[in-house]
Amino acid sequence: MPTYAPHRLQEEKLAQLPLILREEEIDCWLVWVRETVQSPDPVLPLVLGADLVWPSALLFTPSGERVAIVGSFDADVVPSELYGRVIPYTEGIADHLRTELNRMNPKSIGINESRSDVGADGLTAGMKCLLEGMLAETPHAARLVSAEGAVGRLRGRKSPLEQARIREAVRITEQILDELDGFLCVGQTETAIQSFVHKRMAELGVGFAWQSASNPAVDAGPDKPFGHGRPSENRTKQGHLLHLDFGVQVDGYSADIQRMWFFGSEHEVPDEIAHAFVTVRDAIALAADFLRPGVRGCDVDAVARAHVVDQGYPPFAHALGHQIGRFAHDGGTLLGPPWERYGDAPNGVVEPGNVFTLELLVPTEHYGQVSLEEDVLVTKSGCTFLSHPQTALRCIVA
Amino acid sequence: MPTYAPHRLQEEKLAQLPLILREEEIDCWLVWVRETVQSPDPVLPLVLGADLVWPSALLFTPSGERVAIVGSFDADVVPSELYGRVIPYTEGIADHLRTELNRMNPKSIGINESRSDVGADGLTAGMKCLLEGMLAETPHAARLVSAEGAVGRLRGRKSPLEQARIREAVRITEQILDELDGFLCVGQTETAIQSFVHKRMAELGVGFAWQSASNPAVDAGPDKPFGHGRPSENRTKQGHLLHLDFGVQVDGYSADIQRMWFFGSEHEVPDEIAHAFVTVRDAIALAADFLRPGVRGCDVDAVARAHVVDQGYPPFAHALGHQIGRFAHDGGTLLGPPWERYGDAPNGVVEPGNVFTLELLVPTEHYGQVSLEEDVLVTKSGCTFLSHPQTALRCIVA
Repeated sequence: MPTYAPHRLQEEKLAQLPLILREEEIDCWLVWVRETVQSPDPVLPLVLGADLVWPSALLFTPSGERVAIVGSFDADVVPSELYGRVIPYTEGIADHLRTELNRMNPKSIGINESRSDVGADGLTAGMKCLLEGMLAETPHAARLVSAEGAVGRLRGRKSPLEQARIREAVRITEQILDELDGFLCVGQTETAIQSFVHKRMAELGVGFAWQSASNPAVDAGPDKPFGHGRPSENRTKQGHLLHLDFGVQVDGYSADIQRMWFFGSEHEVPDEIAHAFVTVRDAIALAADFLRPGVRGCDVDAVARAHVVDQGYPPFAHALGHQIGRFAHDGGTLLGPPWERYGDAPNGVVEPGNVFTLELLVPTEHYGQVSLEEDVLVTKSGCTFLSHPQTALRCIVA
Repeated sequence: MPTYAPHRLQEEKLAQLPLILREEEIDCWLVWVRETVQSPDPVLPLVLGADLVWPSALLFTPSGERVAIVGSFDADVVPSELYGRVIPYTEGIADHLRTELNRMNPKSIGINESRSDVGADGLTAGMKCLLEGMLAETPHAARLVSAEGAVGRLRGRKSPLEQARIREAVRITEQILDELDGFLCVGQTETAIQSFVHKRMAELGVGFAWQSASNPAVDAGPDKPFGHGRPSENRTKQGHLLHLDFGVQVDGYSADIQRMWFFGSEHEVPDEIAHAFVTVRDAIALAADFLRPGVRGCDVDAVARAHVVDQGYPPFAHALGHQIGRFAHDGGTLLGPPWERYGDAPNGVVEPGNVFTLELLVPTEHYGQVSLEEDVLVTKSGCTFLSHPQTALRCIVA
């Protein structure tokens, strides 16, 4: 990856903000944080790219104004290229915050609180309480609204640099998966396979898109449900399947890909595996054909879900796709069913620049689960695959 | 460091919990989280040691009961050694949570919300709202209380393994600081000094107690206020001071130490530097003499503050000491002045097993600031230094 100006990412994201705040009718967006090493707001890397210690207010308006009120010891981590006004304080922030809000006089103040979107829910309960106390005697207290729509759009509309970083994460994830074709053989433990991947990641200098203990998740044979668990001492076996769920992180951006191998030749693949594989592969292709700006997340999920059920399988017990970006699960609009645990996220509308996974599993009777996962970028009129979709089982012949 | 059983840390912390819940009169402590990679609750490493994806409830009672309600894909990251009851769900958690609370019928339900203590404020505003919605038609909604006291005690009472890890972090931090005595010379940039430290950290395989850009903070000469900023191209110079604020992390536990060097021989140290150094050193020693279980944080701060003012310096614009542990700023009782931005933390009471920094700075007229920082463990009757207190300037003679 080439080297960029130190704040290029934040400059790209902050340049998106005025339009988004106008779309969401937020007169002032308030990022209200403290001790962000311990209590990180997921938006902070997008708008600051540094950590803050004392209670801090970052204020943004649709006119492009950017103000940072921070502890005096934190003032020099706030880049003057990004913030036109930096106000340091020593004993307390309340007076400064009220003064700035009085000057701006916003009709609505967006805060990072969301029931559905973890990426837009960086405000803690105690910090909200503290804010309400500071604004109690002012008209601003009644003007607090959730900024979840704006945060979702900001996180979801991947900027050029964000897209480049995700592409690079996908490229390296696929490279390591390709290298496995030459490494895998019958009789290996899941743990050994994970160790090979970890060694290659260290050699390539890339990070983990999620916790290393289950990245990659490695599932050999029929007996282990896929999930977020650790590899076991299960071994690869002739005539069995192997499943990996894997993603590296490059410069803070993630990939998330699932692949499947079969130990045996192509013509030895049992019919029930072949049927399951084609069903999963085609459900992803159908969903990708349907995915475009303006559709709701749940409608994309429904396309894949209907195909799976139509082919005689139970509906999968998870969402078809989540956004990826700074996290493997990046929040915002979800390509998921309207279940309680997903809140409003499946009702979100797909936008250009969103990057989603497309993933699902179906069970087989004798060989365990069959599951694939691809990464796609939403374009102006549809979507494009960032990963190279798996179209056939990768067969390992002894 | 020796290798321990995988869940020994969590076992030690969970063993502390029943007494703490009784002390704080919390009938049920509810850790309520989701997507903890993106939105981490700082207590999770103490009570689980893994990440959870779907909305999850961990429930603890004074009788020692431990229940985990988690998404079905997360169930196998919950160790059965730690949780007697693991309840996996697929579509929604609400029914399961209400059922467990009905069965326990707690008079008070502690949640991780705190205005003052970031370590006890892991509940997000949106997750609190979600919880209140799920409990709306039940008697439990009116029983929610802040668990900040219990969380502060749990984090603050360092267990044997936690103490061992902090001691190791202090040992390695001091080792690298000692190595600097042989590396430093006149004419080096702050950046070069930081690079040396980073190289040694990589070679020793240790992590950063806070963000690497300002760890160590390196301040050469009189012109740079100490803070959390990055090193500059300032150079070390004959007759000038050098200041480092540095801490490594070992197995998730942190050290935080400040040291000062003078470029010149001992008898060349100007009087105003010598007086400032002795003042800072003695203020720390006086505070350490005073520090013991039962005193309030603000009273310890006051001892050092009074000495500094008595010696003719302005009071320092920060707290005398913070707890260290999983973070360099670990929350809980603070040895600080009663200022707005510290909330209730300075009113907290010191307990055995707490690990604090003792740190302060005074200005000089011609040589910039003079600042030291030590790490101490509170014992049954006083405190003991984990770091080796700096008693004289470290003189670098060409």
